[in-house]
Amino acid sequence: MAIVTFRPADRTATVAEGTSLLDAAAQAGVAIEAPCGGEGACGECRAQIESGAVERVPRGCLSADEVSDGWVLACSSRISGDVTVRVAAEKNSAVQQIVTEGAGGLTYRHSRIPASEPAAAKHLLEMSPPAPGESFSDFARLARALQLHAGVEVATAGLPVLRNLAGALRAKEGRVTVTVDVGNDARPAEIVRVEPGDTKDTQVGLAIDVGTTTCAVSLVDLARGHVLGTAADYNGQLARGADIISRISYAKTPERADELRGLVLSTVNGLIDRLCTEHGVDTTQIDNAVVAGNTTMVHLALGLHPEYIRLEPYTPTVNCPPRLRGREVGLAMNPEAYVLFAPGVGSYVGGDITAGLLQTALAEDNDDIRLFLDIGTNGEVVVGNGEWLMACAASAGPAFEGSGVGCGMRAGSGAIERVRIDPETGEAHVSVIGGGRPRGTCGSGMIDLLAELWAGDVLDQSGKLDPSRGDGRIGPARGGGRYLAYTVVPQAETETGEPIVIDERDIQNLLRTKAAVYSACAVMLKSLGLDFDAVAEVYVAGGFGRFLDLEKSIAIGLLPDLPLERFTYLGNSALSGAQAMLCSASARDSAARIADRMTYLELNVDPAYMSEYTAALFLPHTDIDRFPTVKTALASRRSQGAPR
Amino acid sequence: MAIVTFRPADRTATVAEGTSLLDAAAQAGVAIEAPCGGEGACGECRAQIESGAVERVPRGCLSADEVSDGWVLACSSRISGDVTVRVAAEKNSAVQQIVTEGAGGLTYRHSRIPASEPAAAKHLLEMSPPAPGESFSDFARLARALQLHAGVEVATAGLPVLRNLAGALRAKEGRVTVTVDVGNDARPAEIVRVEPGDTKDTQVGLAIDVGTTTCAVSLVDLARGHVLGTAADYNGQLARGADIISRISYAKTPERADELRGLVLSTVNGLIDRLCTEHGVDTTQIDNAVVAGNTTMVHLALGLHPEYIRLEPYTPTVNCPPRLRGREVGLAMNPEAYVLFAPGVGSYVGGDITAGLLQTALAEDNDDIRLFLDIGTNGEVVVGNGEWLMACAASAGPAFEGSGVGCGMRAGSGAIERVRIDPETGEAHVSVIGGGRPRGTCGSGMIDLLAELWAGDVLDQSGKLDPSRGDGRIGPARGGGRYLAYTVVPQAETETGEPIVIDERDIQNLLRTKAAVYSACAVMLKSLGLDFDAVAEVYVAGGFGRFLDLEKSIAIGLLPDLPLERFTYLGNSALSGAQAMLCSASARDSAARIADRMTYLELNVDPAYMSEYTAALFLPHTDIDRFPTVKTALASRRSQGAPR
Repeated sequence: MAIVTFRPADRTATVAEGTSLLDAAAQAGVAIEAPCGGEGACGECRAQIESGAVERVPRGCLSADEVSDGWVLACSSRISGDVTVRVAAEKNSAVQQIVTEGAGGLTYRHSRIPASEPAAAKHLLEMSPPAPGESFSDFARLARALQLHAGVEVATAGLPVLRNLAGALRAKEGRVTVTVDVGNDARPAEIVRVEPGDTKDTQVGLAIDVGTTTCAVSLVDLARGHVLGTAADYNGQLARGADIISRISYAKTPERADELRGLVLSTVNGLIDRLCTEHGVDTTQIDNAVVAGNTTMVHLALGLHPEYIRLEPYTPTVNCPPRLRGREVGLAMNPEAYVLFAPGVGSYVGGDITAGLLQTALAEDNDDIRLFLDIGTNGEVVVGNGEWLMACAASAGPAFEGSGVGCGMRAGSGAIERVRIDPETGEAHVSVIGGGRPRGTCGSGMIDLLAELWAGDVLDQSGKLDPSRGDGRIGPARGGGRYLAYTVVPQAETETGEPIVIDERDIQNLLRTKAAVYSACAVMLKSLGLDFDAVAEVYVAGGFGRFLDLEKSIAIGLLPDLPLERFTYLGNSALSGAQAMLCSASARDSAARIADRMTYLELNVDPAYMSEYTAALFLPHTDIDRFPTVKTALASRRSQGAPR
Repeated sequence: MAIVTFRPADRTATVAEGTSLLDAAAQAGVAIEAPCGGEGACGECRAQIESGAVERVPRGCLSADEVSDGWVLACSSRISGDVTVRVAAEKNSAVQQIVTEGAGGLTYRHSRIPASEPAAAKHLLEMSPPAPGESFSDFARLARALQLHAGVEVATAGLPVLRNLAGALRAKEGRVTVTVDVGNDARPAEIVRVEPGDTKDTQVGLAIDVGTTTCAVSLVDLARGHVLGTAADYNGQLARGADIISRISYAKTPERADELRGLVLSTVNGLIDRLCTEHGVDTTQIDNAVVAGNTTMVHLALGLHPEYIRLEPYTPTVNCPPRLRGREVGLAMNPEAYVLFAPGVGSYVGGDITAGLLQTALAEDNDDIRLFLDIGTNGEVVVGNGEWLMACAASAGPAFEGSGVGCGMRAGSGAIERVRIDPETGEAHVSVIGGGRPRGTCGSGMIDLLAELWAGDVLDQSGKLDPSRGDGRIGPARGGGRYLAYTVVPQAETETGEPIVIDERDIQNLLRTKAAVYSACAVMLKSLGLDFDAVAEVYVAGGFGRFLDLEKSIAIGLLPDLPLERFTYLGNSALSGAQAMLCSASARDSAARIADRMTYLELNVDPAYMSEYTAALFLPHTDIDRFPTVKTALASRRSQGAPR
């Protein structure tokens, strides 16, 4: 094994010799872009060796001077021993999410979690034996020791903890590790575990994002504020409906509600099991969890009645469920430990949004107007500043999460994440997560694909394919009657042996999704008397993949046409917000304050919304003047006469 | 049915016509003494009709003037319609506990529970439907309505309550009854039940006394602070050991600890079921419980490890268990509702004692020194005033609770509660609870029996029977070898067809119990530099029965020889203390303050205790000068020459 250190981020990975530098970077959580798919063709993945060396395959796109200065291509370099490399500055046009590929699927790493006060913390105590005449109970002795030696006040413990207390205090001559849940306004600090001896090495918690389409779980080292690993999977409820409304409809009997609860718990517990196996942790060692999910997902996961979320005036049972024990929720963790829920605001703005906002300056005291877009199965939009926040939701659909599009898949191993279509040959050059053969396309790949197809005039403004173009890649859609389809990757080059194809129905789904998001932003800003120019910063959250190409997102009309430097791509901000809440008291407080000052705008009752939405169902929009950069590029393309 | 009102207590009973006035009094919780067993012979049960009339059987012990003044004998009068009667003042020498006989056993009624703030209270709300644009969750709407219309702040609700919330709020057009547990320092107020419509008629809780020998449960109307009924039974754990030490020894494996837990839960749940059946209440309607029990019983009932209670330095896991849900404890009640535990002080002074002290002036701010004796399986003694309290415990044994004595039984239907031995014939006149044939003897009957046998010189000071006396009622004890036995009731007159007999082994058990209690008092006072004369008031608690004859209790040396007016008999004070905690916030606060200011004296390490105990194993004591009243009576008896 060799240690690879990446500058300037100063992150390390321990990898087997022979691993590519690109894979080592991914493992360290350092984003290196390789648009050509690691073919050594584009030169984008260049990095400079500072110390140590790598085995390199000479490639033409590096000059002799560059090679002698220590520049290498990460995709074409293999680790042969400890090495320190400096990676190129991040490209502005492709805001990146830091991710790494784990054994079982896509795993994310986040750079910074403020580990100021985890919701559950371990304390090692050396208890003296009870003294004659002392007359303290074991619990009182323990509480006193925690106060004296750890400065922690506890008021209570659950029955299972008390049942083991006498034994634990006497097993290793009074040496015990005590896990204290810090509690909140509504609940006092509580002892959730007492173990003989020193078990401080293992202090783990879970950040859980329960999405309509995708669930993601991070196993977090609570003491160090460090994400040990993240795993994601499709929500098992997908078999019972793609969106919130169809899930609620399905859950109309208690048996079916139970079934949906079981499905999502099975997904999440499967992810927990996978992470625990990978990291050598027993699930019962997990002493805390923070769940960020939309209101419907939280209702279904807890067995709360979801029906009134769907019926006017859209009333959930709770916006923020109380702190519950692991065993009450049914999570694979210490059954006594607590599960905290990121606070929601209403039926269509849940804890996933408040958690996500923790990753933005909207959580801070700041006058600038900022916009936050979470593009999941529902598209949620928040606008505001440090004083006020307004939120709305649009049924975006899961197209960018890989559901509802034939070739779509979750951003994980085998997903096409970048697409470039050769203007000469019409051939699609794809970049695949994990570097192998593609199995499908994740959200960022689909944005690239739409943008490239439209830029090449293979696709018209309304999303129709032009069979005269595409160099023979366009044909009838499978089972699609009059619809046409574009072959992104022929079957000979895919993992599955099936071609990767996008057809006009898929494209309509993608257009509906992007139109829902854009028009929600436009209507909300208009209702506030603002336009896009007033927005100082735009945060984009969603499980698109590792990179989101902002220029292409603007080109298809998903994002407003603003200067690129105003955008920040947050990736799965619900998950990273949950990680922050898990590790930081200020993040937990901040989430509560965010929920408090957020008001909800109901789009369904706004007559402007439907006309905005319809106008946005085109590439990029019926009103091209709203996209001046795109208009200029189009004019320039047209003026060149030839469609490439 | 007719309504009977008793003055001066102003209590009523609704009874069938034909019921005896004595039984109606019992049902109303008014103590009328009938030492002759309701035979119309003693005239003690006299009462005066104030309005209405009763069917009376003329009896010789009332004069014609008395009859014309409206005096009747309660035992010989039957209810024929609504009537108001005034009962005679209570006799000073027989301090009484107010009890009544229910369908399934002895049931107690207590005169006064301060119903200022029950631990769980119902609130009827008329909720308006959620309004468009309001964006409150159902829980938030409910919390707001509770705050506005009931002045109650709630912070949380458990998952099962939340699961039913949406349905409950919509079932009867927003009319709901909400049960709120008021919480405590360690837990916020919580909604434990939401029911459609108005269910305020049923607001019930449980007071539970878990004793080593006997368990007693009261079903209490929480809104009115009124005991609906009380039932008692032997603790099912008796089959696994008579006292605390043998139970702890038995519980040495987890399986056996589970067995003991199951046994006591089965006893208590059986009592709850019985009470609920009698009062037409479903057990799941029970919204609160307060448990008062000694530390070992609470540990065994909760499955806490009891071993270190028995091993020096006698360290329990907890002195006061946290508030737990009904389902966690395993009680037959609303599984979401809370169970509160009276706070304990140490391994041998538990919540039964702090609860019991609520019934005394020791709970108040008062300078007088007072003594509290709880004579159960363990004998606990507390001395102190409003500023300080000192407690100690002595292994008294369950003799006065009807266990460990051949003819002993719990104070219930068929128990001999009073005994008078005819000095001429040597015949025992007995008074039986419920008025039927006797089945055995409860604690008060045994005290009477010892005192009467000793007064008649049938018994000597060391507890030996004199076979030359007793008019043929003394013979060999069954299976007792050299021991003798006295026949209290011959087999022809008993319920069971077996004679009721007390033998010398029984008597030694009784002497050991009374010696343990008396010597614990003496040693503790001595350790404080006090003697009995310094004690302004003595409270006697214990399940002896309905009446405790103080003179006879002093005569046998159970109680110190102090003026009778200094004594108060509290009966089952643990139970009545639990009732008070159930209904009153000030009682709950008071119990916590009592526990805080109590210190524990360990008798086992006090060398004075064993010699005091040995000296007290006689009738009334080896040092007769400590019992001047008894000495005088004895001298007078002896001076009359004749025995008796």
